[in-house]
Order: sequence, then C-alpha cells, then structure tokens
Amino acid sequence: MKNCRLTVTAYDRVPDFARGHVRDLRVRWALEEAGFDYEVELVRQGSQGEAANLARQPFGHVPVLVVDGVPMFESGAIVWRIAEASETLLPADAAARNQCLSWLFAALNTVEPAIGLVSTLWYFVNHPDRYGLEDGSAAKALRPGARRAADGRLARVVDALGDRPVLVGDQFTAADLMMTSVLRNAAALRLLAPFPSLADYVDRHSARPAFERALAGQLQAFDASAAHAGPPS
Amino acid sequence: MKNCRLTVTAYDRVPDFARGHVRDLRVRWALEEAGFDYEVELVRQGSQGEAANLARQPFGHVPVLVVDGVPMFESGAIVWRIAEASETLLPADAAARNQCLSWLFAALNTVEPAIGLVSTLWYFVNHPDRYGLEDGSAAKALRPGARRAADGRLARVVDALGDRPVLVGDQFTAADLMMTSVLRNAAALRLLAPFPSLADYVDRHSARPAFERALAGQLQAFDASAAHAGPPS
Repeated sequence: MKNCRLTVTAYDRVPDFARGHVRDLRVRWALEEAGFDYEVELVRQGSQGEAANLARQPFGHVPVLVVDGVPMFESGAIVWRIAEASETLLPADAAARNQCLSWLFAALNTVEPAIGLVSTLWYFVNHPDRYGLEDGSAAKALRPGARRAADGRLARVVDALGDRPVLVGDQFTAADLMMTSVLRNAAALRLLAPFPSLADYVDRHSARPAFERALAGQLQAFDASAAHAGPPS
Repeated sequence: MKNCRLTVTAYDRVPDFARGHVRDLRVRWALEEAGFDYEVELVRQGSQGEAANLARQPFGHVPVLVVDGVPMFESGAIVWRIAEASETLLPADAAARNQCLSWLFAALNTVEPAIGLVSTLWYFVNHPDRYGLEDGSAAKALRPGARRAADGRLARVVDALGDRPVLVGDQFTAADLMMTSVLRNAAALRLLAPFPSLADYVDRHSARPAFERALAGQLQAFDASAAHAGPPS
C-alpha cells in the first residue's frame, strides 16, 4: 500500500456538529500514522445516492479508500488494511495483533453502538420534526436508560485499560486509533465526565501530530468549500 | 488454526428470545464452514462480570475463541481470523478479499446498529421497568423513525445484492456469513417483510448444513443446561 496511489473520499461540507467527526478522519489518521501519501476526493453533500457513489460505497457514505484504482469501504476495514501494511500501527507478535483486531471490532461493534444510541436520541430530541415526532419528549424519556447502557460499556473500557496508556502492549496501535475515534464522539456528547481516565486517553492520543494533521485536513476541506460557496445560508 | 486446539465460549442459558441469536453462533458457523474441529466451554449465565471472564473478554460477553490457549474476542474479529485461515470462506483474489472485509464491517457497523436501535426500542417497550420507564409509550413513539432508518440501510443492501445470491464474487464468503447473521436478527424483528430478496438471502444461507450444525450446537447446550437444572421456574 505504501507505494500505491491512495485516494480517500470525504464530504465537501457537513453540519457544524459533524465537523471533525466524519469517518474519513479515521482513515486520514491511519494514513498519517503510517506515513503513506494520499489524495482526497471530495464528495458533494447531497450526491450520496448518485450511482457513481453507490458503485463504490453501497450506502453512499464516506470514506472510500481507492488503492491503485480499486475501491474499498467501511472505515474499520480500511483502517485495518492500512494498519497491516504499516510499520507503525500494529505490534509484530501474532497474539498481540489479534488483540488489536479484537479491540478494533470492540470499538466499532460493542462501544460505538451504545454511544450511537445516545447520539440518535440527541437527534430525536433536537430535530423531532425530521423523524415525524411532535416533540422531543419521548426521546428525552429514554435518555437515562441509554446513558446507563453507554456508561456500562465505558466502565469496562476503563477497567481493561487500567493505568496503561494504550489498549494492547506498550505502544499506540490501530486499536487505540479506533477506540479514540469512538470515544471522541462520546466526549462530544459529554459522556466521558464520569470517566477521567478515558478523557485523558482521548486527549493524549488526539495530541498526536498524525491526528492533528488528519483533523486539519478534514476541516480545511470544509473551510475551502464554504469559502468557495460564499457565506453560509 | 486448522491444527490448533480451538475452544469457543457460549452461555449455558439465555432468555427465550435470544435462543439461536447469541453471537457464539457466528463463530460456530464459521468454524463449521471452515471444517475446523472445536470444543465449547459454557459460561454460566450471571457470571459475566467475574474476573476470569473479564480477563479474556473485557465486556464479559461471549464468544471468546481460545486458540492453543490464547484467547481473542469480538465475533467480527474471530470470524475474520477463521475466514483467513480457511480454504472456504474467502476468495483468493486480494481485491475481492478486501470487499469481503468491507462487507463484514458493513454488516456489523452500518447495518447492525440500525437494526439494534429497533431491537433496543423493543426492549424498552416490553420491559420498561428494567429501564426506569413508567411504560413503553416513549419507546413506541420512536419506533417509526427507527424503522425508517433501518429500512434505509436494508434497501441499500437489496440494491447492492441485486439478483446475485452472494455479496462478493459468485460464492458464499465470510461477508455473507456475517450479513446473514445480522439479517436474521432483522427477520426476528419482522423487518424483512418489505424486502423479500433479503428474506430469501437469509433463508438460503440459513439452510447451509454448516449453519444448521452451528445452530443445533447452540440450542443443544441450552437444552442440556435446562434439563440439568430441572423444569424452568
């Protein structure tokens, strides 16, 4: 992958709450950590359902990673392939690599859905009209239960991490990249206040130069598109 | 992995609605398709939070796959490793393997969360007391929105599948194993009625002898535990 031509897709613009949280960030971060050069292809907001997008990403989402002309999709799959091709994102030991794969899936399939429920209820509360609701009261009633479920998952990550700075071994891996990405969303929903060790974990890994470059890249594209389009309507 | 000693963890008993849907089924199915011998170690329901369980599965869940004494967790990670070690669950071509990895993540991180929201609301409606709710009315109000979101994801799978029997190439892969597993949960929630091609997809792959052996194995353990414990209270 190092010597391949790599192109990541990203949106040209998103609502303010999504800035810095769209999933191409995870792929950009992995590419920056790996030291692989890449280009970015912007997907026009609103064009997700067009045939050209669906042909390479069946749900019309970003990111896609195009490797020498051949696309793959899902940030989890892409990050794992970048990690395998990198010299920096996985340990050498086979059992430790399996632990990284386990944690990468845990971030996406055990932790993120619980945080996603809190996030979904946030949308229902704040934009009830979009979901055919008269108001946000029903979603508000479910928030404590959703919050408890998310707290339960987060508490297990706290225990697993203990006082170590990373999830597997003694250095930053793709497992931390994905868990940090998921926990940033939890932090944005103010779910990490009861879990200072997770807030520290996110702050520490978000201060990595590779993350900062990835984040700047995503935001720069939004800013450039906004400048091109004139002031927001 | 073929010549390793393999042990899968599974619960000794679960509530009726979970019979045939616990995630060790996905791992059993992959092992059956691969033709790898394995043993099953039952985890006593209620013991999930004990130190021995958390030491090998940070959330206390099943399944764990123990490979020659070394555990790994998350059904997605385990199924992927089995698939890579198998001669049956992945195509030979590298780009097609990447498509399988993309679809495996799509099943777990794009399709399953939308179905999971419908499922969570089902719990809230049917067991409001467990979630500190007076009744199920709030969850009922959110069902149409959650249903529309799930429909949107399922419609994209319909389109991607077209009239082909499998997601990648022309034979059953780990991508179909995982998507079928996720869609079985959608079927149990009656979400597939508008999508007959997905219902057919599930029926066709669930008729595979390897799936039938895996399902029988999970149910047999529940039945044996129930018989051992006497009639249900």
